[in-house]
Amino acid sequence: MTMKKGVMRPGHVQIRVLDIDEALVHYRDLMGLIETDRDAEGRVYLKGWTEVDKFSVVLREADTAGMDFMGFKCVSEAVVDQLRGELAEFGCAIEDVPAEELKDCGRRVRFTAPTGHNFELYATKKQTGRYGVGNHNPEAWPRDLTGMKAQRFDHCLLYGPELDKTLDLFRTVLGFDLCEQVMTPDGKRVAQFLTVGMKAHDIAFIDHPEPGKFHHASFFLESWEDVLKAGDLISMTDTSIDIGPTRHGITHGSTIYFFDPSGNRNEVFCGGDYFYPDHEPITWDADKLGKAIFYHDRVLNERFLTVLT
Amino acid sequence: MTMKKGVMRPGHVQIRVLDIDEALVHYRDLMGLIETDRDAEGRVYLKGWTEVDKFSVVLREADTAGMDFMGFKCVSEAVVDQLRGELAEFGCAIEDVPAEELKDCGRRVRFTAPTGHNFELYATKKQTGRYGVGNHNPEAWPRDLTGMKAQRFDHCLLYGPELDKTLDLFRTVLGFDLCEQVMTPDGKRVAQFLTVGMKAHDIAFIDHPEPGKFHHASFFLESWEDVLKAGDLISMTDTSIDIGPTRHGITHGSTIYFFDPSGNRNEVFCGGDYFYPDHEPITWDADKLGKAIFYHDRVLNERFLTVLT
Amino acid sequence: MTMKKGVMRPGHVQIRVLDIDEALVHYRDLMGLIETDRDAEGRVYLKGWTEVDKFSVVLREADTAGMDFMGFKCVSEAVVDQLRGELAEFGCAIEDVPAEELKDCGRRVRFTAPTGHNFELYATKKQTGRYGVGNHNPEAWPRDLTGMKAQRFDHCLLYGPELDKTLDLFRTVLGFDLCEQVMTPDGKRVAQFLTVGMKAHDIAFIDHPEPGKFHHASFFLESWEDVLKAGDLISMTDTSIDIGPTRHGITHGSTIYFFDPSGNRNEVFCGGDYFYPDHEPITWDADKLGKAIFYHDRVLNERFLTVLT
Amino acid sequence: MTMKKGVMRPGHVQIRVLDIDEALVHYRDLMGLIETDRDAEGRVYLKGWTEVDKFSVVLREADTAGMDFMGFKCVSEAVVDQLRGELAEFGCAIEDVPAEELKDCGRRVRFTAPTGHNFELYATKKQTGRYGVGNHNPEAWPRDLTGMKAQRFDHCLLYGPELDKTLDLFRTVLGFDLCEQVMTPDGKRVAQFLTVGMKAHDIAFIDHPEPGKFHHASFFLESWEDVLKAGDLISMTDTSIDIGPTRHGITHGSTIYFFDPSGNRNEVFCGGDYFYPDHEPITWDADKLGKAIFYHDRVLNERFLTVLT
Repeated sequence: MTMKKGVMRPGHVQIRVLDIDEALVHYRDLMGLIETDRDAEGRVYLKGWTEVDKFSVVLREADTAGMDFMGFKCVSEAVVDQLRGELAEFGCAIEDVPAEELKDCGRRVRFTAPTGHNFELYATKKQTGRYGVGNHNPEAWPRDLTGMKAQRFDHCLLYGPELDKTLDLFRTVLGFDLCEQVMTPDGKRVAQFLTVGMKAHDIAFIDHPEPGKFHHASFFLESWEDVLKAGDLISMTDTSIDIGPTRHGITHGSTIYFFDPSGNRNEVFCGGDYFYPDHEPITWDADKLGKAIFYHDRVLNERFLTVLT
Repeated sequence: MTMKKGVMRPGHVQIRVLDIDEALVHYRDLMGLIETDRDAEGRVYLKGWTEVDKFSVVLREADTAGMDFMGFKCVSEAVVDQLRGELAEFGCAIEDVPAEELKDCGRRVRFTAPTGHNFELYATKKQTGRYGVGNHNPEAWPRDLTGMKAQRFDHCLLYGPELDKTLDLFRTVLGFDLCEQVMTPDGKRVAQFLTVGMKAHDIAFIDHPEPGKFHHASFFLESWEDVLKAGDLISMTDTSIDIGPTRHGITHGSTIYFFDPSGNRNEVFCGGDYFYPDHEPITWDADKLGKAIFYHDRVLNERFLTVLT
Repeated sequence: MTMKKGVMRPGHVQIRVLDIDEALVHYRDLMGLIETDRDAEGRVYLKGWTEVDKFSVVLREADTAGMDFMGFKCVSEAVVDQLRGELAEFGCAIEDVPAEELKDCGRRVRFTAPTGHNFELYATKKQTGRYGVGNHNPEAWPRDLTGMKAQRFDHCLLYGPELDKTLDLFRTVLGFDLCEQVMTPDGKRVAQFLTVGMKAHDIAFIDHPEPGKFHHASFFLESWEDVLKAGDLISMTDTSIDIGPTRHGITHGSTIYFFDPSGNRNEVFCGGDYFYPDHEPITWDADKLGKAIFYHDRVLNERFLTVLT
Repeated sequence: MTMKKGVMRPGHVQIRVLDIDEALVHYRDLMGLIETDRDAEGRVYLKGWTEVDKFSVVLREADTAGMDFMGFKCVSEAVVDQLRGELAEFGCAIEDVPAEELKDCGRRVRFTAPTGHNFELYATKKQTGRYGVGNHNPEAWPRDLTGMKAQRFDHCLLYGPELDKTLDLFRTVLGFDLCEQVMTPDGKRVAQFLTVGMKAHDIAFIDHPEPGKFHHASFFLESWEDVLKAGDLISMTDTSIDIGPTRHGITHGSTIYFFDPSGNRNEVFCGGDYFYPDHEPITWDADKLGKAIFYHDRVLNERFLTVLT
């Protein structure tokens, strides 16, 4: 059942960047995210313009690129308490992060998934409303958006081991559903796309021997035309491109991949299938993995297998 | 909370048409719905190609046009039982419709809302899978779609009295959220758009003195280009148009309205805002109703107020 | 034959506006034309970003709105000389406008067509190149465009008498072709769309008893999505809309009509058929005029018949 | 000047295919060209649905793939006579092909360009009108189109030596203009894009040591969304893809490249810049060739250099 455990959506991702000013030119000026705050540690907070909460992306300057953690927003603090208990029972390492460790965000319950990634649950974050349009007679969009006009932080794709156990955790404890999967002939699930709402994926995992690897953070665009213009902007700004514009087989979304100046991979995409909890998972055969990932080329480019620590 | 009561989505609508063959030319050949079955009463069953269940539209030949009922699919028969009790307690008139009254559909619990419309809850319907693509290495879309290529039955807009009480019913008993509303200066809600998932609306009501009025049944398209082509097809087939292509202020979806040969209004649209349960309702002032409904023209066309019994 | 007489394209239009500052908010900030200069008389010069010449729109503050004249660029001064002679021979009143009457524009030969409109021929205008991209390794588009991002001045639609004689003038003297026409059952041409290149129309006339009437000046957009966003911007800026987004039957372009603050009608559109000189004219029956003009609604809105002196 | 010598447009291309039935599945069912006739030699004639003439593509079964010739339509037989003389004077080898060698096509003057490619001039071909819509109250498009719905044969890209001399031929004798070029630092033109109308290119050449090489034949689509669907169809039909969807730097059109079953490369594309004869050529530096050809990737894929004999 959708949201059967009270987890609502991907709420934020904290990304490490090598140079915060260069990163802002990328995430704010090129991708069009809205800068909403900075904190005493020098972290910068951003959001897509359609997002109601104050931020969904946190950039932290560090010596290595990669993802620190991804957070899911829950409907209530009671849900966070409840799930904290279930996570511990499941055997996850848990860290309690106090309120205001992220500015204007309540306490978070951080845990490590079997794939080696850090996730968080939280229920409280300041709501500043949709950027530029608000809730009262809202116009269709704000006139002062820039660059790719990214609408919202959408999902992450992560690489790591223990996909079965991780699926069990996300399904049983957190109430996610398995929307789509890639299976080998001998029944091993090598990729799994999980949703906690109606989107084709809120979090996705690909099987990988090393734990905690970061493939990409993804942002939603309005249209296929915006994907084209994203590609144009990537070229105009001499930004490193990975692949696209193209379509995914899995989710059928239309997409382009590229890299921030620190080497973190980003996706902007549009469209994609919808999900309801009575939908059977969609299954791709592992020998169709190329088509499943990049529907037009039907082969993986070499870089697809490159991930960050 | 999304789906807090176990109602998943709009599952079907039964529409009365004056001539079943003419209606099929409209719903199947023009709108591109897939005909999936007929029954002994002569009713015809159709679905959008992305829908997993066997049907979402039932056409019934009758002497007057209009909507017989709209049904919501629930996650389980237990939920249907539970909600049946709560509906009765709320004071709704309830009718138990036996399994197979609609072919390949389980028992339904029919109730009348304060607005005078008939709704149903059910949990069981034969799943035939996405038309032409299925669940195994699915292609992006089937090659043999026709006309407008409507993807799914999306929602209905209904006119009637007692909006407050109806909102209470849908919120309290059925677990819907109020996504968007139109308010008069003295605080009367004259339009309400409700969702039970992430869509901007699954059912909408406009205040009207007469109960049980039908404004339109709406179907989802992939893109604004498909809305243009829908308009083209409307013209090519001498179909009666209402308004569009245009955008709605409410939901911000892009749309076209037209009539079936019996006078039932249809909408096809794309895009639209998304909803999460921590979103405050969006409010439009009643003196902005024109802009709220038709964002570009900013006035209601006269026909907008025309509804069927 | 295309350009058989050396006339290349619509090169400029001079429009009268009641308030030049309000007009600039409209043509520059809303429509996205680039302001390129002003002159001692207070006229403002603008262009679409893809246009190579310095300007294509001249706004002149005056007590009444309307079009002063429309100019066509020729391939050489010799062509202008040659056509000046042929225009005189045809019987047109001719006025020689000296170089620099429009800043950075060479001498112009002004003449009055049988419909009562003032047109000009010229061959020399300063070329400032495509705005923001130029001719050397040009990017796909400039990043600092605003509003509707109008790409170029495209054509005008004018109302007046004597369509046959005007067609004869444009065909015989100026080398235009008749691309599309609307004919009454008794063989009267009530609308004619003329081209001097491959576009579906460079100038169009509709039969009207009063001479010299101005219907609209039209500007080209890149896509149907840009037409939607034009409609959005019209609403956001409380600009008076006429009709659209919709498609024309004639030319099949996709379009929206609206008014500048002085009451001049503008069009922005995309797409449209192409023309070669061996194409037979396309003919619409006058009883299909509604569909010919507004393909989806298939009726003329009342405002369509409103024109300026 | 546009069409200063009376050449109108690319009129046809004859392509060699290894198996005519497989080729038809590709060009007719996948690309959506309309089959209009076959001849006694077994050649099959096709056209894009917007084209007025009877055919623009001729498929000939042969032992090797490649292009036999490309033909340009002229405005009159007198023009063909005149240009035949000028071609001979220029030093081209000329072959007179009698009327009806291609069914329903008049006599053709065939000549070999310095690059080693065979071209033809002709003025007479049966006109069957736009497929499915015609010239009288034409609908926006025919409802029975299939596959990619290719609108027209647009241009070819050819590889060979002697670009300067070929440019001289096309400019001086045939009245083409140089729209866009790629130049080495020492002033050698390594790519040239020529137009005889308002399109960004009607024929293009890339410098190559071997004469007479065929890179691709290109067809026009309506929109970027149609380019996406072309990519989808390529995948659905297991057609060999080359690259795309992407944008070109040169012409700025949006494109996808793929191969017919015989190995001939096809392009379908939309958009692209427009040209007038007073436009200076656009110049790309040779060290920007990757970006000039594939604007997003900014590198040539290896296959780009693969051409057919």
